Amino acid sequence: MSGLHLATWMAPHLARVEAALSAHIQAQSPAALGEAMRYAVLDGGKRLRPLLVLATAEAVGAASDSPAALNAACAIEAIHAYSLVHDDMPCMDNDVLRRGKPTVHVQFGEAQALLAGDALQTLAFEMLTPASASVDPLVQAACVGLLARASGYQGMAGGQAIDLASVGKRLSEDQLRQMHRLKTGALLLCSVQMGAACVPGVSPAVQAALSRFGEALGLAFQVVDDVLDVTADSATLGKTAGKDEAADKPTYVALMGLEAAKAYAAQLAETALQSLTDTGLPDSRLAALRALTAMVVQRNN
Amino acid sequence: MSGLHLATWMAPHLARVEAALSAHIQAQSPAALGEAMRYAVLDGGKRLRPLLVLATAEAVGAASDSPAALNAACAIEAIHAYSLVHDDMPCMDNDVLRRGKPTVHVQFGEAQALLAGDALQTLAFEMLTPASASVDPLVQAACVGLLARASGYQGMAGGQAIDLASVGKRLSEDQLRQMHRLKTGALLLCSVQMGAACVPGVSPAVQAALSRFGEALGLAFQVVDDVLDVTADSATLGKTAGKDEAADKPTYVALMGLEAAKAYAAQLAETALQSLTDTGLPDSRLAALRALTAMVVQRNN
Repeated sequence: MSGLHLATWMAPHLARVEAALSAHIQAQSPAALGEAMRYAVLDGGKRLRPLLVLATAEAVGAASDSPAALNAACAIEAIHAYSLVHDDMPCMDNDVLRRGKPTVHVQFGEAQALLAGDALQTLAFEMLTPASASVDPLVQAACVGLLARASGYQGMAGGQAIDLASVGKRLSEDQLRQMHRLKTGALLLCSVQMGAACVPGVSPAVQAALSRFGEALGLAFQVVDDVLDVTADSATLGKTAGKDEAADKPTYVALMGLEAAKAYAAQLAETALQSLTDTGLPDSRLAALRALTAMVVQRNN
Repeated sequence: MSGLHLATWMAPHLARVEAALSAHIQAQSPAALGEAMRYAVLDGGKRLRPLLVLATAEAVGAASDSPAALNAACAIEAIHAYSLVHDDMPCMDNDVLRRGKPTVHVQFGEAQALLAGDALQTLAFEMLTPASASVDPLVQAACVGLLARASGYQGMAGGQAIDLASVGKRLSEDQLRQMHRLKTGALLLCSVQMGAACVPGVSPAVQAALSRFGEALGLAFQVVDDVLDVTADSATLGKTAGKDEAADKPTYVALMGLEAAKAYAAQLAETALQSLTDTGLPDSRLAALRALTAMVVQRNN
């Protein structure tokens, strides 16, 4: 890891993201909507997407306290949180446990969960366009465009639609990859792309190598997710284990078997690391991204 | 109306909005999600918000074919459409009829309706940040900031949360006004503000007068809505009539009586028209906004 200690690098960044998210969602809010939003997004999750934004921004030369990178980090976590709130609802996956807590609709009711998810999505775009002049409008517009395209009907939401439509069906590996490229991969790739967009003037070649990194990492993340759904228990996962299999959802494990899926994840991580090398950026600046890649593949929840 | 014939002014604008929305939502999409989105947003509705955007942009000097104004017009309609899709869902108002058609969840199922609403919200922000260089990034960022603030938990979504929490309760006129200021008013005001933001350099005084116009018009719209819920039938409304009363929702009619509510709407329209005069903009440029104000108060659906 080129001398980088990931936990030491992460701690202050995680604290900044948590503080900024908290500051953006006031508990005092119309009909306690803010309370449901805070429940959904604070004190939970690995914050992988925000960390990818921040690590990528630093890789391309942003200061460690860049407001643009912090806004983008918070925005992508708000989008991720909204998608989980809606995904857990009874008409979707109907799940009751998330991040070790009752899901939002269990805690606050379905209507409030629907609104909290809606408002978390909106908040993401609000955070990307701060009223203060702290971020170049060019960077603001670029990040909004990247995040909207990654999370809309040709991105994350489209992937969820495929997921819903494919329950009980046998997908080919290509179809499964396409589903995950949209459902999970688009947002992970977007984390990397927004991080790079926080610094104007990054060369197309570096941007392309970073995008290849983001794509490989996104797919690796999903393959590992499928592996963990089979090998981990609910307490470790903080969500219901085995639910993909129970719901007869197509997974990499179902498609290729457990051992092959593990090997595939390792191979994707190699591709991701090679893409980082291909950026030609100094090793010291890539250390956090390399460490995050290792964390994605070696995680147990 | 200073010689303006509203229908003649509206026709080409409505055609441009319809064409642009259609072009932005490809029917070929993951798991038919685009189909549900198109069903929700095309061929329906009065398009009041887009028309307000376009009329305001022209009032402050935008060309009638301004790409910035067209994007903002489409974006606010996408937000409006998403809010209707989610608002109609069983966990919210549980409504089956909208714009004379079965609601989206009746037609496509709840899960697809949830995703279609989500993706329509995202699309709004995608449309505000076109990949082409057709719109100044400063204008893009300004419009995203306005739209996000108007539709989030301190705007439209917050108003819906209050609405949900107030069923069966007796609200004061102040509380009712606050609910509608957020639930309906915020988006109508935002239409005017985004229109003004499409032309950089509009003076603060003109912006303030336009905002007063937007606030008064927004409140007038809601009062008329409450009146129509009582006086019109479902066929004319294109949605279920009498549902506020049936759901024991607080309305202006319930609070002040039918005749007083009608008089209040007329008074708000006067305030709106006076605010337009206060802008000091040439009468010829204000004609469309004046005509739209009359349309809001005199509509029968």
